[in-house]
Amino acid sequence: MDARERSAERMARATAGAADDGLGAIVVGPSPDLAYLSGYDPPPFERPTVLVLRPDREPTLVVPELERALAAVSGGGGKVDLATWRDGSDPYGVIAGLLPGSGRVGISDRMWAVHLLGLQAAAPALSWTSASPVLARLRARKDRDELDALRRAGAAADASFEAICMIGLAGRTERDVADDLARLLVEFGHDSADFTIVASGPNGASPHHDPGSRRIAPGDPVVLDFGGSFDGYFSDTTRTVVVGDPPDGLEDVFALVHEAQGAGVEAVRPGVAIQEVDRAARAVIAAGGFGDRFIHRTGHGIGREVHEPPYAVEGDRTVLEPGMTFSVEPGIYLDGRFGVRIEDIVAVTDDGVERLNRSARELRVVD
Amino acid sequence: MDARERSAERMARATAGAADDGLGAIVVGPSPDLAYLSGYDPPPFERPTVLVLRPDREPTLVVPELERALAAVSGGGGKVDLATWRDGSDPYGVIAGLLPGSGRVGISDRMWAVHLLGLQAAAPALSWTSASPVLARLRARKDRDELDALRRAGAAADASFEAICMIGLAGRTERDVADDLARLLVEFGHDSADFTIVASGPNGASPHHDPGSRRIAPGDPVVLDFGGSFDGYFSDTTRTVVVGDPPDGLEDVFALVHEAQGAGVEAVRPGVAIQEVDRAARAVIAAGGFGDRFIHRTGHGIGREVHEPPYAVEGDRTVLEPGMTFSVEPGIYLDGRFGVRIEDIVAVTDDGVERLNRSARELRVVD
Repeated sequence: MDARERSAERMARATAGAADDGLGAIVVGPSPDLAYLSGYDPPPFERPTVLVLRPDREPTLVVPELERALAAVSGGGGKVDLATWRDGSDPYGVIAGLLPGSGRVGISDRMWAVHLLGLQAAAPALSWTSASPVLARLRARKDRDELDALRRAGAAADASFEAICMIGLAGRTERDVADDLARLLVEFGHDSADFTIVASGPNGASPHHDPGSRRIAPGDPVVLDFGGSFDGYFSDTTRTVVVGDPPDGLEDVFALVHEAQGAGVEAVRPGVAIQEVDRAARAVIAAGGFGDRFIHRTGHGIGREVHEPPYAVEGDRTVLEPGMTFSVEPGIYLDGRFGVRIEDIVAVTDDGVERLNRSARELRVVD
Repeated sequence: MDARERSAERMARATAGAADDGLGAIVVGPSPDLAYLSGYDPPPFERPTVLVLRPDREPTLVVPELERALAAVSGGGGKVDLATWRDGSDPYGVIAGLLPGSGRVGISDRMWAVHLLGLQAAAPALSWTSASPVLARLRARKDRDELDALRRAGAAADASFEAICMIGLAGRTERDVADDLARLLVEFGHDSADFTIVASGPNGASPHHDPGSRRIAPGDPVVLDFGGSFDGYFSDTTRTVVVGDPPDGLEDVFALVHEAQGAGVEAVRPGVAIQEVDRAARAVIAAGGFGDRFIHRTGHGIGREVHEPPYAVEGDRTVLEPGMTFSVEPGIYLDGRFGVRIEDIVAVTDDGVERLNRSARELRVVD
């Protein structure tokens, strides 16, 4: 199947999914949703670009006049009708003209609010809702090519972790180590590094710490959480290491997170609601007495976005199916002391789970 | 004034502006708006982060629990109240609890649609509108530091243009030249290159052409439109060059665009509506017989965003004031033949205009 046929098939499935959900249309703006469906991947901008999918109509891509040629040669151009609007005219009226006169319409999550407001004003009889229930059903189950890309991404992230451990952390600033990680991700094949959290000592208690000028010293636990895009699909892995001798309490907390991460991964198999993965990991940490220090969900879907549905969180009842990929990343955060997090990407298989990150999960002592 | 005082002053002015416009509150998500107001600049994500500005209340930053420490140490943290929500709980309810019970509320343009839908559901009595009329009034008038950053950005873009002309284009692919331009922008001081359009021969007829494998040959006009972020403020300039002898018709079209660009710039002064800049440039091209081949607006505001209000387009009646910065970039696009565009960033001064791009605007012959 070539790229255009694949786009046509994905658009057809999304349109059918919209009909199943009682949506009269789906409106998709520049985003990983649009790239997945149509192959067209412009940046979001103040000039609206949208793909309109509507049962019993051809898909239509509405683009600014000055991007007509760009859209025509990119991706799904051959399989969609093109409509254009010109600067100074009303784009929302053009889009509204392609929508049903009433009923519910889905909109892609990342569409800018200013565009949703414009559409709501142009089509006041419509009721707007997130298109994610439809689009995430499609995108969550990765096909063989997508799984291969995610495997390569995971292996490259693992190699980057191995390399940074060999280089060593002691005496260096967090920023320095983060720059090294970004460079390593690209050297091992990523298109780009997207995030490189290096959180040493007490900074580890802030899960999304922004690496700074703190110099890493002996006795520091260090949370390394990093990833990027590899052939358009993301890696995301976390390991917590310690420089020299572990401080008081680290080993017990680490053992608990390690056990919780294993319990979360073991809960993964087809037919299970993803919230069970969160429950399995959280139960271990709660039983260890640190339930209130596990201050985030257990994981997030991953693919063309580093965070995408489904989410391993209480309340997400998405039933796991083969091909779904997401992170399992419990953590414990002790203010003023340190943090510990361990994260692997996993894929649901026909009868269980495959880890896409394979670097050792035991507490690693580094220089 | 230190960064925190400046944030506090900007938030106070935005809040006063909201009150002037009859808005009960403004809700600002991760975006250049948020960075400008608070100094906090996280990426947009599925977990909502918002700054709520409300007359007679302290500014409140609502963040995911796991980013509390990050928000507290970043930018405006010291001048705002922090509220948090935890994964699995309802963030929209927390935000709605900070909003008035009825009336009109402004939302930042780049907020993701999924978050606006969540807020609309959580606060159904509110009427939502774009916060841009309030925020753009503040952000459009650059202060001295911002103007200095934009001048440095412009000078670095001009130096990049000079360098690419010296390197030469003939025999190279568009992609190759685009990579060079990206490298040069960074070498001359940009934080990052954001876009590097290299549109040769017939590709020039597509204003936002994506540089590809076409090899540039003698007789090709080439549109070079490039820029990036420099100390957080954008450059954006376009020059059209020709490799060797110009093809038939190029010189006349070029002269017309050159004259139109000059007419647009000459129209810039305090007290004039920005749409007059568009009219001045467009009149020249229309008089030359190419009105229908000038297929976009004449320009866009620029600052922390490469495109931001106001816009030099029919219908934008924003009255120019000293400190406003925007592009003047008319073009003519001839399908199957070539395109010509000339673009400078200009700043409105107390009594006229200052060009922030100063590379020669005459038709340049390059190797």
